[in-house]
Order: sequence, then C-alpha cells, then structure tokens
Amino acid sequence: MSLVVVGSVAYDGVETPHGKIDRMLGGAATYIALAAGYFTPVKIVAVVGDDFAPEDTDLLASRNIDLAGLQRVPGGKTFFWAGTYSADMNDRTTLRTDLNVFADFNPRLPASYRSAPYLLLGNIQPALQRSVRAQMNGLKLAGGDTMNYWINDFRAELLATIAEWDFLLINDSEARLLSHEHNLRRAAAKILEMGPHTLVIKRGEHGAVLFRREGHFMAPGYLLEDVFDPTGAGDSFAGGFIGYLAGQGIEPSRGNIDVAELRRAVIYGSVMGSFCCEQFGVDRFRTLTREEIEARYQEFQSCTRF
Amino acid sequence: MSLVVVGSVAYDGVETPHGKIDRMLGGAATYIALAAGYFTPVKIVAVVGDDFAPEDTDLLASRNIDLAGLQRVPGGKTFFWAGTYSADMNDRTTLRTDLNVFADFNPRLPASYRSAPYLLLGNIQPALQRSVRAQMNGLKLAGGDTMNYWINDFRAELLATIAEWDFLLINDSEARLLSHEHNLRRAAAKILEMGPHTLVIKRGEHGAVLFRREGHFMAPGYLLEDVFDPTGAGDSFAGGFIGYLAGQGIEPSRGNIDVAELRRAVIYGSVMGSFCCEQFGVDRFRTLTREEIEARYQEFQSCTRF
Repeated sequence: MSLVVVGSVAYDGVETPHGKIDRMLGGAATYIALAAGYFTPVKIVAVVGDDFAPEDTDLLASRNIDLAGLQRVPGGKTFFWAGTYSADMNDRTTLRTDLNVFADFNPRLPASYRSAPYLLLGNIQPALQRSVRAQMNGLKLAGGDTMNYWINDFRAELLATIAEWDFLLINDSEARLLSHEHNLRRAAAKILEMGPHTLVIKRGEHGAVLFRREGHFMAPGYLLEDVFDPTGAGDSFAGGFIGYLAGQGIEPSRGNIDVAELRRAVIYGSVMGSFCCEQFGVDRFRTLTREEIEARYQEFQSCTRF
Repeated sequence: MSLVVVGSVAYDGVETPHGKIDRMLGGAATYIALAAGYFTPVKIVAVVGDDFAPEDTDLLASRNIDLAGLQRVPGGKTFFWAGTYSADMNDRTTLRTDLNVFADFNPRLPASYRSAPYLLLGNIQPALQRSVRAQMNGLKLAGGDTMNYWINDFRAELLATIAEWDFLLINDSEARLLSHEHNLRRAAAKILEMGPHTLVIKRGEHGAVLFRREGHFMAPGYLLEDVFDPTGAGDSFAGGFIGYLAGQGIEPSRGNIDVAELRRAVIYGSVMGSFCCEQFGVDRFRTLTREEIEARYQEFQSCTRF
C-alpha cells in the first residue's frame, strides 16, 4: 500500500578511498524512495531547482515513485552537499552544504497523497515533519528520522513531533543524545517513553537493534567485502524497513503490531543498506533486482541461525 | 572431556567509571578456566608466586579446575597488571605491568594432563604455546589466542605456532594486523589460509563472527544494562567457547566439524563474556549458575530469531 516519503532530494559530491564523484543524485528522500520502491508504491514530497536533470527524474519515475509532490522551483538550484570519508569509512567530514531551494522547503501534499496509509518522514525540520503528518488522514503507520542538530537546538519541537509517531529510526549517537543515556538499552527505554511504540537504533556496520517495550531484536551488520560509498546507507535502511511493512499492509491494532513482521522489516532494512554501500551514490539501485534482495535476506538468515 | 588451559594467573588493579579495585584475582587462564569450568573439567597450567592467596586457590579448586599444573615459585611474586578504562569503557590504558614470576614461565605439563583431548592456549609467547602443544598426545581440538605484540614482533614464530591449531580466537584489530587487511571478511579469508580451520573474531560489545571456509556466522553482542568491568570478557568468551565444545565431546573428522555446535559454542562464549562484565574481576563467576547461563543462551536465541 502507498507510502509517502518526505525529505531532501539533492546532488552530492563524495570522496571515498575508492574514488571521487563531483556531482551525483543524492538526498535522504531519494535513497528512502528508491529502496522502498522495491516493496511498495512510493509518493515523494521534496523540492528541487530547475537544474534537476531529466535523467534523474526518469530514474525515480521508473521505480514505482510518484513525483506529483516533487516541487520544482524555477530559477532555483537543487540542494548540494559534499563530503569526504576517512580511510576506514567510519568517519566523514562535510566539505560543503548549499541548501539552495531546500532552505525554503515547505512540504505541501497533493490531494492524491493525503489518504496514503504509510508515512516516512526523512530528516528535516521537526515542525515541517509535524505539518506533513497533519495533512494526512487515514494513517496506519507513521514515523521517521532526525539528527543531532534538531535534537540539540530544537528539542521541544522535536519531542512534540515524535510524540505523534509510531516509530523512530535513528543511529546510536543520536539515541544517546536524545535520551541523555550512554547505555543503549537505557537510552531505548527512555525514548520509548517519548511516544513511539517502536524504535530502531542503527549502528552502521554493526547492524541495528529494534526496541519495543516487550523486548528487543538484534540484527547484525552484513559483512561486505567492499564498501565503496556508505552515503545513503541509513536512508536505504529506512526505505527497506518501511517499504517492507507498507508492502505487507501491516498495521498496529490497539497498540499491538506483528513483531515478527517488524523483525523481518529490520532485516530488509539491513539488506537495502548493505546494497547501497556496494557502489557510489544510488548506482547499486540502478541494477539491483528483487531476487538479489531475497537472496541476501536468506543469507542473513543462514548467517545468524543457531 | 578434559580441557587443558594455559596462560596467566595474575592479580589485577582495575579502575572503571563504577569504581576502583587495587588488587583482585585476574589473568587470562583464570577467566578461561572459570568460564570453561561450567561446561567441562579443566586442567590449568600457569605460574604464581608464594603471595598467591589460599582463597584464590580455593576458588579455582572449587570450580572443576585441576591445579596440578599450577607452579608456585618460592620467594616469587605473582604477575601484576593495573589499568584504567575510559568513560565509555571502550578504551583502556595500562598503568603497570609487573611480569614477576611470569617472566620465566616455562609451562611443563603434569603427566596426568598430557592425554587430555582439548587444549586452549591463552595469550603467551608463541614458542611456549607451541611447546605445550608438543607435550600433548591424543588432542582432538587445539587452539588459542594471541595479541598485537606477538603479531608484530614474533610474526614467524607465531605463524609456525598457529599453523598447528584447529582454531584461532582473536579480536578485530588483531585480525587486521595479522592479515594486513582492514576488511574483516578478507582478513578472515587470509587467516584461514594460515592453518586453523576455524576462526572466531571477537568484536567486544558488537559481538563475534565465526569464520570457516564454507561460510560465516554472526553473533550480536549482548546488550547489557550495566558494564561494570570489561576485564576478562574476551578470555571468558574463549572459556565458554572451548568449554562448551569440550563438554559436548566435539571432534573434527577429516577436517569436518559439526558447524551447528560451533555456532552454539560462539553463543556460549558470548554468554560468558557478557556475564563477566556484570561485576568487577571474576566476581560474577562466584555466584553465576548453569541455569542463568542457559537462560541467557535462550535470550540470545529469542533476541536474534526472525
């Protein structure tokens, strides 16, 4: 069933030990939508300038992604980010952030989006995330991502926003910052008091942990032989996670949810994040097939069973 | 079936964010033996001074541990190590290392040890590890640990030593150093060419990976609510791993081994490592029961199944 994805569509300049690309398609909403599109129809809400290339529009349109909500600002330039990764790719340094048209992004949902049952709010200003949610009716499952900047400087706004979410997807350092607890289990317990019934803490190469009040589920990180470019891996995880759940039509009923399906969604998230790292930018998604996704899911199972 | 454990028996001074202990029982062989003793009879080979306290001898003797191979040097002092942990306990600094009687440790096996079928060589000089193995007859499964110092400065001796082992248990930074490969999967492939048919790479709080030529198994790290003292966790992992295999009487036959049992052994290793961190030094093992071990093993299963 339909999934609305809100966030940045951008161009990225990236340097990793494997090479350097000056300008390529990027942005959180791009990765989320491309990954989720393997599982369910996606409706994107984002803004670009008139420098946004037709081939990039074509790629998205060819992947189960509705672009009715992709605003195009005449005379504007698309959000640009550039960064460089450390030798082991565990750290990255931002070299440039040109918000461009993204600075005035005010997401307005086309009428055709408003009754979609699933919503993934990429990392944008919390008040904007909240306004998007308010434009929707008939939501079955809504949640999203955030980042250090909003946690530090927009805490009250962020707390009011996530209080309305079913799930929150963040990384371990963000979880620590949000909860003021170093220990992940304690951090998760505090965050589950903030509203969401489901929390996924992403740990990069070390996998992810799904937390719910009744217990947790640990997914290991997929062991890749080569990591070419980790850009977008976390967003691809989010896309795989919510895309799978939307594709299954899962919905909470009086606070209950099928936890076995949530566990599978975490593994599909890990699968999509792992594929994302195998080539630069979104390139792996140009050729990736649903059969390869299923094969890697099975590999996760065979590598973790005991 | 009987397991011979060789390594240091020591006193440790440890400071963690939870407190400071000036002198307590420690040493690799101590942790390995205490953990393995829950699964199988253990025969320890180590050296102490005449300052080694009767209550520490009594603790070991009470735990399925044969002390016929514990040499006591009259007038000598027991190996002493002191260290301090960082706030998040992911780094530690050595404050003091007094080798004392350990400097001249020359492990000689009592006749009653030589036909034991299982051998775990704790982290000591590679030539000494090799001499211990040569004193045994009828080994079914032998392997051990090493460290950066031997990898860097005694490489040829170390390679000749591990070439005779069935399994090697090391941490991720040691695996990278030994293989000259940063990527764990490539590192493991190279190490499996060095002799051992089984490699376990320990990743601290992030779990462990079992590598064999036909594939790998990923065990997540147990999420503790409180880590009081990580000292000895890796050795407790080793003790749980080999202790379980020895207890099951597992043996390779023409290079084949029951991989399902190896996977279970990795989980028992993780279980013992996690318990070790819950109190200072060996204290958790003073009260830990086999029932608690089984309950945590089941918890690992329920937290990882999908």
